[in-house]
Amino acid sequence: MSKWIWYQGDFEIYHSMKQNFDREERGGMWPAYWYTSGWNHNVVFSKVYELTEPQNFNLVFQGHGYVKITELATAKESKFPLDATINCPAGQVKIEISVGNLSGLPCIYVMGKKINSDSDWLVTNFIGDAISVGCSSMFVNKEQNPMVFEYQHELRQANKVEHVNGGTLFDFGHDITAQVIVQYERKFTPITLCYGESKTEALDVEACYLKHNINTPANDKFGQYDTKKLAFKTRLRAFRYLFLPNLDTNGVLQITADYQFVPFPQKGYFTSVDQQLNQIWQVADRTFRLCSGNFFIDGIKRDRWVWSGDAFQSYFINQYDFFDKEIVKRTILGLRGELEVKQHLNTIVDYSMYWIISIELYYQTFADKEFVRQTYPKMKALLDYCLAQTNNLGFILGRSGDWIYIDWADFDHAGALCAEQILLARALQSMIRVEKILGKATTETETRYQKLRANIDRYFWDADKQAYIDSYESGKRNVTRHANIFAILFGYTTEEQTKEIVTHVIQNSQVPQINTPYFKFWELEVLAQTGQFKNVLQQIKNYWGGMLENGATTFWEYFDPTEQGAAKYAMYGDKYGKSLCHAWGASPIYLIGRYLMGVEPTSPGYQTFKVTPQVELFQNVDCAFPLNEAGDSVQIKTTATTLAVLATKAGGTLIYQGKQIELPPNQQVTVTL
Amino acid sequence: MSKWIWYQGDFEIYHSMKQNFDREERGGMWPAYWYTSGWNHNVVFSKVYELTEPQNFNLVFQGHGYVKITELATAKESKFPLDATINCPAGQVKIEISVGNLSGLPCIYVMGKKINSDSDWLVTNFIGDAISVGCSSMFVNKEQNPMVFEYQHELRQANKVEHVNGGTLFDFGHDITAQVIVQYERKFTPITLCYGESKTEALDVEACYLKHNINTPANDKFGQYDTKKLAFKTRLRAFRYLFLPNLDTNGVLQITADYQFVPFPQKGYFTSVDQQLNQIWQVADRTFRLCSGNFFIDGIKRDRWVWSGDAFQSYFINQYDFFDKEIVKRTILGLRGELEVKQHLNTIVDYSMYWIISIELYYQTFADKEFVRQTYPKMKALLDYCLAQTNNLGFILGRSGDWIYIDWADFDHAGALCAEQILLARALQSMIRVEKILGKATTETETRYQKLRANIDRYFWDADKQAYIDSYESGKRNVTRHANIFAILFGYTTEEQTKEIVTHVIQNSQVPQINTPYFKFWELEVLAQTGQFKNVLQQIKNYWGGMLENGATTFWEYFDPTEQGAAKYAMYGDKYGKSLCHAWGASPIYLIGRYLMGVEPTSPGYQTFKVTPQVELFQNVDCAFPLNEAGDSVQIKTTATTLAVLATKAGGTLIYQGKQIELPPNQQVTVTL
Repeated sequence: MSKWIWYQGDFEIYHSMKQNFDREERGGMWPAYWYTSGWNHNVVFSKVYELTEPQNFNLVFQGHGYVKITELATAKESKFPLDATINCPAGQVKIEISVGNLSGLPCIYVMGKKINSDSDWLVTNFIGDAISVGCSSMFVNKEQNPMVFEYQHELRQANKVEHVNGGTLFDFGHDITAQVIVQYERKFTPITLCYGESKTEALDVEACYLKHNINTPANDKFGQYDTKKLAFKTRLRAFRYLFLPNLDTNGVLQITADYQFVPFPQKGYFTSVDQQLNQIWQVADRTFRLCSGNFFIDGIKRDRWVWSGDAFQSYFINQYDFFDKEIVKRTILGLRGELEVKQHLNTIVDYSMYWIISIELYYQTFADKEFVRQTYPKMKALLDYCLAQTNNLGFILGRSGDWIYIDWADFDHAGALCAEQILLARALQSMIRVEKILGKATTETETRYQKLRANIDRYFWDADKQAYIDSYESGKRNVTRHANIFAILFGYTTEEQTKEIVTHVIQNSQVPQINTPYFKFWELEVLAQTGQFKNVLQQIKNYWGGMLENGATTFWEYFDPTEQGAAKYAMYGDKYGKSLCHAWGASPIYLIGRYLMGVEPTSPGYQTFKVTPQVELFQNVDCAFPLNEAGDSVQIKTTATTLAVLATKAGGTLIYQGKQIELPPNQQVTVTL
Repeated sequence: MSKWIWYQGDFEIYHSMKQNFDREERGGMWPAYWYTSGWNHNVVFSKVYELTEPQNFNLVFQGHGYVKITELATAKESKFPLDATINCPAGQVKIEISVGNLSGLPCIYVMGKKINSDSDWLVTNFIGDAISVGCSSMFVNKEQNPMVFEYQHELRQANKVEHVNGGTLFDFGHDITAQVIVQYERKFTPITLCYGESKTEALDVEACYLKHNINTPANDKFGQYDTKKLAFKTRLRAFRYLFLPNLDTNGVLQITADYQFVPFPQKGYFTSVDQQLNQIWQVADRTFRLCSGNFFIDGIKRDRWVWSGDAFQSYFINQYDFFDKEIVKRTILGLRGELEVKQHLNTIVDYSMYWIISIELYYQTFADKEFVRQTYPKMKALLDYCLAQTNNLGFILGRSGDWIYIDWADFDHAGALCAEQILLARALQSMIRVEKILGKATTETETRYQKLRANIDRYFWDADKQAYIDSYESGKRNVTRHANIFAILFGYTTEEQTKEIVTHVIQNSQVPQINTPYFKFWELEVLAQTGQFKNVLQQIKNYWGGMLENGATTFWEYFDPTEQGAAKYAMYGDKYGKSLCHAWGASPIYLIGRYLMGVEPTSPGYQTFKVTPQVELFQNVDCAFPLNEAGDSVQIKTTATTLAVLATKAGGTLIYQGKQIELPPNQQVTVTL
């Protein structure tokens, strides 16, 4: 079977640019505010074949160019147009296909009996040696165009139609990403579509984030009008509600949503007698699926961008939900861009580091050495870019234009920031592990790592405060939670230090609380890692349960129970700036799977894994989590008296009350509680 | 007046990619075989205005994005869609216009009473500080699209139509670059168009380089069919002849050529009593104009690519012909691509060096400091890329994938090649001069330059052979002309050395002759610089006159008078591989203007200049050469007894028989011979 092939990584660069240019706000488009990497426009694909008899083949292609066949025995060359039926002679032949594409992605699909484009082909952009091509299991038909990512479509009608404020309000039940189809019944009438993730937003005709005045449909830049069918179809947008002001749509028009999504499989699930928790799982799962398409994006209304920090958490969630390797690869490559580094990912220094760490975690999850090998040059170039801005202590400092972010918090930013150094140490550690996987020398990286770890403790650990401080340069010795959370998470603290940090930072109300859901994710992990499972569960029920009580049908970017009325929807100084369907809102999936049910790979790709469920916290659990892409999973069920665990593959160990119990494949292990 | 604006240098990168993808050969397209630099897809344009009253403005744009206006006194921000009529408040305001363009060049055209896009705007790609935008005097109307370069059109009929070999042959008199319009008289009929730069090629239905079978015109990838008008229009191709085999076109169809060109002004001209020389000038001028469009390309049939070496010679010719600054700038920027260097220009190390030198020569010709200032970062990055591959003697060595070319000649390539080192020295010298122009420190570059010059003489000058040798590593002490020609041309030889080289290399028939017109250009310069004007003139008349005798109506890539019949048109192993309209074929324009008429700037931009005509070689000369873009020129006329020189600007000095005679502006100076 043939596959579409392109320059490795360029499909993702092309589509991440498309994705990052896709944000809309109040009639304007908002391309992401960072340097946007380009793809290769001019490449040559090649493969050597040994043919016992002549072979015909044809191509489908995007761009233009030619085919060159070299008979290696005689060095005889022949050239053909791309659209010819090509007869390739027998013998050892090298097929080279040159393709340039000014406006898009050069890619080809080669069809023959023996000669077919697939992952064995090589490609060059004329720099260095040829490398393996990029391809995807989603692009295997000649009718496809790799420049168009393919979503599944589902036509949806509103659950509820109301007449409000002199207009008509359509409620689709929960957020979806869809093109709106306006089917006029008799004739075109100018209308306004007011979109809302909340009812409040949709009814706010003046201030809603997305609004579309359809007046001259033939020239509308945001949609197409089919004059014969009297149907107008808008561009893709995210919404739960649609409000058409000053119009009773009855007898005038019908509204349908063409909902578009990637049908990721249902692999992880969780139920128990706690209906609120079940609902949290389900809404988290819905939220996460909506934010997962070609890439993991932050939110579906806004920004619709691929952010390295947000994606990093999505990788964790994916592992316990649909376990899709391809979206992780696409997101990693889309974020990183071309080989040469011109700017930190999304301009944020920490986001570059998350990306480096993600390669190690990718390997731990999927045991895909080939992808790690392919991506290593980009990993190395990014780490080198980071190391070029370290001082003689090994500490990383921001350059002009860099954003040392970590979190929205009141850090003491004088000189090197502690949390940033801990992330850098973790990134170096990822590099060491990846270099070991690939059989490369690690001495230099190890030396840097050890030096950095020693200097972090020497300069940032405050024995009096029993905590890491933000900055040693200012003399203020300010303590925030972030560096301390990272230090525990990454296993950089002694048992003693961990206890000290838990007491003097985590449980210390004098230290400012984490106030973003993003960092709340890491804080809850620390609580779980320090055994505070009940606390974690309670926080999940409070925070995410609180959103449900506020009518959430997808999880929000941020939730503050004290916010009332329209204030709930405001953020970043914008009345409807808050995203109500935000990927990191789905973190209960990870927290439940990884900590409360305790499923964790102990070697790459779950060759071995452990299951440490906190059974006493739940009643009548029935849940399962994926173990690989092949469909293996581990199922955990409890009754009042039993814990039953069934893994479909070998390598598992159940840990219950300190006892290690082997999990034989396809054989349920039942423990009496 | 408004101008279209874009990211500085990106118009040229975009269009050079388009140009380098434009080669066609026997039904296939042939994108250039080197790394093709991308342009910025995501940029922000900005300008600060002080407005005494509110101002409306509108935009035309390619891409999508938004406008942000910040009132600087209050930091109040407002955002608008790009297609809105924007009311900008009074006071000090910063206008920022964000534009992303996935498939093309992000660019805008801003129209208001006071607020207009022009060269004062800044632009950023989110890396480093904002820089000046790019713009062009060719793109000043809102109806234009900077992604489409605009040529002037002229419909041409064949000079002669013949019935040959059962088909019809159209002869357009000389090569043109045109779209062919096939106007059917009654109904569509399948036809084949066989193109030829020569009659031989056009009539060779099997082997001609460009051929177009028009069978299913509605789906033809190389043309458009207007079914109503019964007219088929092909893509742009270069040809003198068109042959339609097996068809008497009478009553069936009519052929028209839609000739496309840039109307560069006629600034330089030359006539004398020598009709052959006059014709050489005219055919050289035609050749050069045909090869000059958006960029200086090598040839019009083949390659149609922008080559740094070829362009370098075109800069010299341009200076004595149409003196167009804009095409030089476009070519310099198009060749160089993005800031980061990934590969030598056209993969050739020498071509990177020519590019660096071209910046100095550009300044010497046009005195345009702003362009030099803008281009300096790209110059520095390229020189650094070269210096990174030098050894401890300062010699440059090729890296894997680099091409150390110089010329098609049998060099001794062991270790460092002498000619390459001399070019590097010249490039360092250009850098020093540019750094001085820009007021930058030159110490480091000077040190490198001095060391390199000393080592060239130490390692490559052979006192016995009285010549520079190719290589000192092999021990072969092989002498070719190239390094010796460069050494004299760049003024690196003592008077003594020059004499020795002239005797032992230039006039030594044992040293292999130069056999490419490209290097012949430099050799003729050396002859001229060493006072052998008569020899130069004779060689011009022999070589170029020889082509005229062979029926040339444009000058060829290469001419060997011993080649007979179809062999005249073969090159690179291709029966019709030779280009019959090739830019470097126009070098008589430069040789006549610069040496035989002796017009030369002695300070940047011809602020001062000298005129040293070799009057004794000619009779009744009437010629003129441009002195700047403003239209100033110097005219030289001779009779049997007088030499009359008229310069329209001050600063000129006539040198005749060793005497220096000032040329007052607009005042003819007459010397009795």
